[in-house]
Amino acid sequence: MPKLNENYLNVQDSYLFAEIARRVKAYEENHPDKAGSIIRLGIGDVTRPLTKSAVEGLHKAVDEQTVSETFKGYGPEQGYEFARKAVADYYARNGVSVDADDVFISDGAKSDTGNITELFAQDNVILVPDPVYPVYVDTNTMDGKKIIYMNGTEENDFLPMPDNNVKADIIYLCSPNNPTGACYNKEQLKAWVDYALANEAVILFDSAYEAFVSEPELPRSIYAVEGAKKCAIEFCSLSKTAGFTGTRFSYTVVPKELVFATSDGKELSLHDMWNRRQSTKFNGTPYIIQYAAAQVFTEQGMSECMENISYYMENARVIAETLRKKNIPFTGGVNSPYIWFKCPNGMESWELFDHLLENIQVVGTPGAGFGVNGKNYFRLTSFGTHEKTKEAMERFDKLF
Amino acid sequence: MPKLNENYLNVQDSYLFAEIARRVKAYEENHPDKAGSIIRLGIGDVTRPLTKSAVEGLHKAVDEQTVSETFKGYGPEQGYEFARKAVADYYARNGVSVDADDVFISDGAKSDTGNITELFAQDNVILVPDPVYPVYVDTNTMDGKKIIYMNGTEENDFLPMPDNNVKADIIYLCSPNNPTGACYNKEQLKAWVDYALANEAVILFDSAYEAFVSEPELPRSIYAVEGAKKCAIEFCSLSKTAGFTGTRFSYTVVPKELVFATSDGKELSLHDMWNRRQSTKFNGTPYIIQYAAAQVFTEQGMSECMENISYYMENARVIAETLRKKNIPFTGGVNSPYIWFKCPNGMESWELFDHLLENIQVVGTPGAGFGVNGKNYFRLTSFGTHEKTKEAMERFDKLF
Repeated sequence: MPKLNENYLNVQDSYLFAEIARRVKAYEENHPDKAGSIIRLGIGDVTRPLTKSAVEGLHKAVDEQTVSETFKGYGPEQGYEFARKAVADYYARNGVSVDADDVFISDGAKSDTGNITELFAQDNVILVPDPVYPVYVDTNTMDGKKIIYMNGTEENDFLPMPDNNVKADIIYLCSPNNPTGACYNKEQLKAWVDYALANEAVILFDSAYEAFVSEPELPRSIYAVEGAKKCAIEFCSLSKTAGFTGTRFSYTVVPKELVFATSDGKELSLHDMWNRRQSTKFNGTPYIIQYAAAQVFTEQGMSECMENISYYMENARVIAETLRKKNIPFTGGVNSPYIWFKCPNGMESWELFDHLLENIQVVGTPGAGFGVNGKNYFRLTSFGTHEKTKEAMERFDKLF
Repeated sequence: MPKLNENYLNVQDSYLFAEIARRVKAYEENHPDKAGSIIRLGIGDVTRPLTKSAVEGLHKAVDEQTVSETFKGYGPEQGYEFARKAVADYYARNGVSVDADDVFISDGAKSDTGNITELFAQDNVILVPDPVYPVYVDTNTMDGKKIIYMNGTEENDFLPMPDNNVKADIIYLCSPNNPTGACYNKEQLKAWVDYALANEAVILFDSAYEAFVSEPELPRSIYAVEGAKKCAIEFCSLSKTAGFTGTRFSYTVVPKELVFATSDGKELSLHDMWNRRQSTKFNGTPYIIQYAAAQVFTEQGMSECMENISYYMENARVIAETLRKKNIPFTGGVNSPYIWFKCPNGMESWELFDHLLENIQVVGTPGAGFGVNGKNYFRLTSFGTHEKTKEAMERFDKLF
């Protein structure tokens, strides 16, 4: 009889977005006259179509697949050389040197942040921020690993810092952060790198929102900090940068410098392990998507992406302006598409959810869905249209 | 300090295709005059371009991504309903009933056969055939699971059958088989299903080559056998069926009937566990590829695929004819693109590899790369062109 992985019994039901959908549906059924005026600012998905460079790249690559001479079958599991180099060049333009050989192309930062846990044994101490993107917690719970939390609160601007009394082996950091929109500065990231080097810990750095960093002095990569290649793996993606949430392209940097001792004094390289993992359990990202992604990473391609990002950030500005007017404390919205604000009048986040839905037909995401420190916070996103976002914030302005 | 997954130390270096490439390169350097006449019949990758339906589907879906009204962001992690239904309809046309809700769309059978191990605890007995597609062994070794082997030999036509003295929890079967091309008939598959039901074992059934089955009485799915939904997960792919090795689309069927007891008497559904696994560590197959795949699964789309498959099978016929003429025993080539033959004159497989390369400049795959039972066998594939395959077999004919 198969012995099942019973750690799955400990994974919490992923009910957040399902519960939101349930409440919205119930509201629509009870108030058919108001259903049409609901504005959704909760979802973390892009709405702008693919850019010109991406579309032209896709069509061209599809055409290559129609004739034997240019047809591509299996590609390298790590990604085509041209795609890895395009990523390394993009890093270089942002002032960070990354070896193209250390770049692994994949289908999503969610896949890679999930699958990376396979490289680590069960008896590690995993340090995870709260509030947090639920995937870090769920994937380690599925593995039966021990998770400890660090608090993101108003006091630390939702940017938890290292505590030398805590001995962690693996540390998850996400900056610019989902859900809080907070972004570590270079000194803060340096403190984390110093901690990791001193404790021989590994930082798993999720920079999926790096393209939204607008303040030039803020690091868009942990490798902007010296020594990070000895302690950090970085996950990044075109999902939000280029609107690839439905097109799927991500990249993970696993530097060759990441070498650690085994229990009997041998050495294992995380780069080699990840290479073996991907070669064994993955067959590469579709050629046509790698080809299109390489066009996105050109200067022209990235300037088209920045037009979309500017569009979204105008929404963030409108949301932030309203919150500021109301003296509601918030993080994010400047270097991130997310805005994380304190629920007014001491409300809890699900209470505010219902309050906004019932009174102004605006849907957001209750902070409680991201951890205990989100209990009194609420997330809005800037991925809507200008018109709807403006309308939503005018209603919000009148309500409070 | 991170504790690494030291099971990786036990994974054998995947040297097979690297070693082949090394020997071919050395030969080319030593015999530049002969380099141009090398014919490669070793690789398991398709060479015919994408079909008309697939290409039109890709272009159309890319166009949808260029305007907000039809733009698709995140899709369901399990795959779009239209894609899951297209797969279920394809099964139905082949006489097998599969619930669209039990179909999970993914990016490759390699990903899914690899990732499925996560659902099972470490203390399972894993039964794997030898010779075998190396991924089954490597992925379980990475997990630290105990593997036992069953022999595929000339005596059982490379189709190992259940042994009631062996108690396995998880059983890997691949039919039509890679590398041997052998294909189980319905009675044989029924014996496996009966064994699994009697022993409460789970069969992981890899049917990636089902579209190559030409004899109508042979099952293309394990679900052609009654009771299989209570004991089997099936993995399938468009890689070889539609030339999607570089385009990436696969599907895995995890029936809701697969429910097993936990150590404390609770119940866990493998369907629910896989759903949770995919929802947590995967963000879906690209929309444009799911859309194109749905076109491939139509009757028109599949008839275009069958033209390519017929092209390849003509190569298989030519290879088989030559082997028959020489009285060389072989399996495959009728319901499979692979032909697995006994090395002539008592040669070992690497010896034959060098012999063919040096004397007739034909490159194949030594059976030793697939397990101990492959030591005296050799794999040729039918994925080349008619001209090269014919030429290779004429040279082979003259050599022996």
